[in-house]
Amino acid sequence: MTNRVAASTTISTIKILQQPSNPAWIEQAIANLDTVLLDHSHCERKAAGVAINLMFRYPSHHKLVRQLTAIAREELEHFELVNQWLEKRKIALAPLNAPPYFTKLKSQVRHGEPERLIDSLLLSAIIEARSHERLGLIGDRCPDPELGKFYRSLMASEARHYGVYWLLAEHYSDRFTIESRLAELGEYESNILSTLHHEPRVHS
Amino acid sequence: MTNRVAASTTISTIKILQQPSNPAWIEQAIANLDTVLLDHSHCERKAAGVAINLMFRYPSHHKLVRQLTAIAREELEHFELVNQWLEKRKIALAPLNAPPYFTKLKSQVRHGEPERLIDSLLLSAIIEARSHERLGLIGDRCPDPELGKFYRSLMASEARHYGVYWLLAEHYSDRFTIESRLAELGEYESNILSTLHHEPRVHS
Ligand SMILES: [Fe+2]
Ligand SMILES: [Fe+2]
Ligand SMILES: [Fe+2]
Ligand SMILES: [Fe+2]
Repeated sequence: MTNRVAASTTISTIKILQQPSNPAWIEQAIANLDTVLLDHSHCERKAAGVAINLMFRYPSHHKLVRQLTAIAREELEHFELVNQWLEKRKIALAPLNAPPYFTKLKSQVRHGEPERLIDSLLLSAIIEARSHERLGLIGDRCPDPELGKFYRSLMASEARHYGVYWLLAEHYSDRFTIESRLAELGEYESNILSTLHHEPRVHS
Repeated sequence: MTNRVAASTTISTIKILQQPSNPAWIEQAIANLDTVLLDHSHCERKAAGVAINLMFRYPSHHKLVRQLTAIAREELEHFELVNQWLEKRKIALAPLNAPPYFTKLKSQVRHGEPERLIDSLLLSAIIEARSHERLGLIGDRCPDPELGKFYRSLMASEARHYGVYWLLAEHYSDRFTIESRLAELGEYESNILSTLHHEPRVHS
């Protein structure tokens, strides 16, 4: 009931994203659900890795360390849950090419501090917001109601995650700086996704 | 009661270690407890990172992925707990030079597969076993009884972790190969620690 409504109203409320996903993406995702599920597993592990790498890079940033530890733990829990779904659907664990999305986003990280930290946090915020949007779309359109329910249950965490990254960026900078940088990065991110990648991925 | 006994009988029962720690190490550790506690925090984060990196490198190794996800989650929990102790003792998060131990061990990893995987797993097993031994020694000798109790409570997980890494190595190889390689690596590890490093660290 309300879950479904919540999911479909998501796009307009995720202010951090400049554009909602291209409608062709969800068609591609639903038509290749097993591949997207496998890619999603890689995304959750990657999300844990990114949080841990940030802690390695900023070991004295108390607030960052505390909050990213919690995020890394949750991402590993998601990773475990997605892998249980892979097992259930008899999808073997296997490597998959990452879509160009991540490399392109990474190219926008400025050198020098605090720019590098700010950009890393904001890109994570945007990636989490996009995951939140897309997991919601899968949740809404998934032909397997149980799997759809699982996807809708992940949405809330990803929304919390994008909030944490965003607030951390503000904490290590200021609201005004963050607002304008977020607009730039958000526009860049929406542009990447405006052309559908030929391989079905969570961020294709 | 029995906790204390368990801790002090540890050394002789950790077969994976060729030599018990140099008795000078525990004196150095107890005399520099705050530094060792800070280093321990880095170790737990590093342990989570190592588990996640192995999953990145072997994304199709089902058993490895499943078991290292569980270990990474536990290491992050330890990281959080150690950081709470740092906060309690007003030790600020800060970077610390890693002791030569890790770089030296890493130099022993052979190239090519499955050697690289086997060596990585066995070195993790040895590091976990050494942590198990040393956290137990700190638990026994710690002047703060609460902190001592905390250290003894971590010992069991680290023992489980070294078992998991060891069994994974056997799973991707065979018992005979593993036994002889473990003896070589274990001797190398004990040799590193036979000279006390001048900076107090968990693996100094
Ligand atoms: Fe997640
Ligand atoms: Fe997330
Ligand atoms: Fe640990
Ligand atoms: Fe461990």
